[in-house]
Amino acid sequence: MHDVRKIDVMESIYDENDHIAAHIREDLTERGIFAVNVMGAPGIGKTTVIRGIIAELRGLKPYVIEGDIESDIDARALRALGVSAFQINTFGACHLDAPLVHNAVGNMSFDSKGVLFIENIGNLVCPAEFTVGEHALILICSVTEGSDKPYKYPLAFEKADLILMNKVDLKPYTDFDEEFFMKGLRALNKDAALIEVSGKTGEGFAAAAAWIAERAKAI
Amino acid sequence: MHDVRKIDVMESIYDENDHIAAHIREDLTERGIFAVNVMGAPGIGKTTVIRGIIAELRGLKPYVIEGDIESDIDARALRALGVSAFQINTFGACHLDAPLVHNAVGNMSFDSKGVLFIENIGNLVCPAEFTVGEHALILICSVTEGSDKPYKYPLAFEKADLILMNKVDLKPYTDFDEEFFMKGLRALNKDAALIEVSGKTGEGFAAAAAWIAERAKAI
Repeated sequence: MHDVRKIDVMESIYDENDHIAAHIREDLTERGIFAVNVMGAPGIGKTTVIRGIIAELRGLKPYVIEGDIESDIDARALRALGVSAFQINTFGACHLDAPLVHNAVGNMSFDSKGVLFIENIGNLVCPAEFTVGEHALILICSVTEGSDKPYKYPLAFEKADLILMNKVDLKPYTDFDEEFFMKGLRALNKDAALIEVSGKTGEGFAAAAAWIAERAKAI
Repeated sequence: MHDVRKIDVMESIYDENDHIAAHIREDLTERGIFAVNVMGAPGIGKTTVIRGIIAELRGLKPYVIEGDIESDIDARALRALGVSAFQINTFGACHLDAPLVHNAVGNMSFDSKGVLFIENIGNLVCPAEFTVGEHALILICSVTEGSDKPYKYPLAFEKADLILMNKVDLKPYTDFDEEFFMKGLRALNKDAALIEVSGKTGEGFAAAAAWIAERAKAI
């Protein structure tokens, strides 16, 4: 493989991405918009969790950028609830990057202070390498995924500010090993908060919304 | 972003990958080894399913290549069961490619006819773009992922020869919509077989092993 050429291109892409991400963050901060990058594996419940948090986000207006490879199922579901949702389709690309989010932000209207949820492509690997201008990185996991995920996808866990453990309603039916999970997580990341949530019962969304609201006030 | 440069490099990578993959397939066919590329999201149960199938693979020797970003948890678990497992760590890369698998195959000894399971990185996006010399592509899904996955990750579903729907023991506790899933799947792929399996109860592994054994005989 053309390793040297690949590395050259990648380094230039990362530099350019970080530069644009810093610009997005500055722009959103000025407008009073707190941005969260929402990452997680396919089917982990990213849209469901965003919806649950939005319902508890009192006094802060929600905005959403939906990253999907091809479909707009999630953006349509959010719009049906009256949420302002902008669709990015990557047509094959495995992560959002700052240029894509920059275009989206430029096409959205932020008429009052609030929270911008940037739902990344369902993928635990590549999105972790690209900041998209967020103030906080939220990683969604689930008890049905198994407890070895921090060991296998370390970068995502290392970078997360908040971890939401979803589908806890299914915990009685799985053999999720909490101690092993926490050991792996804390070896990578001493500070990330962890909140258990359930898209089914609504558990934990008020706490997750409070975590976001506290930080949104501080920007 | 440097789109033209990126596309140049990617096209050259795909061509080289396909060339090496064809070489791997030919080499393995000559040695009587049927190779399956096992894809699926993080935590979907790839290693558990491989282990379940191996237990039912009568008369065919199992070999495994374990693709992981950093850990060797799965390879160690397989070796503990007496299975010959070769570890590939990609250190950040989000998929296996043919050059990585070529190196692995060159370092393994295939002393009798059998089946080589190539467990890809947990990712529904990037691995679908790279053939690794397999005879068949097995995609693992689960009822806990939600039923919209074919709509959101079309390439993986389009390319699959066999779909294993895992964690069916949890079906009573989820709102998995089988009809919606099948409609999305069949719009992309009319021919792929679908077998329900459960790592917990062992359901379906004999049928999956029979599917593989039938095709392994035909190479």
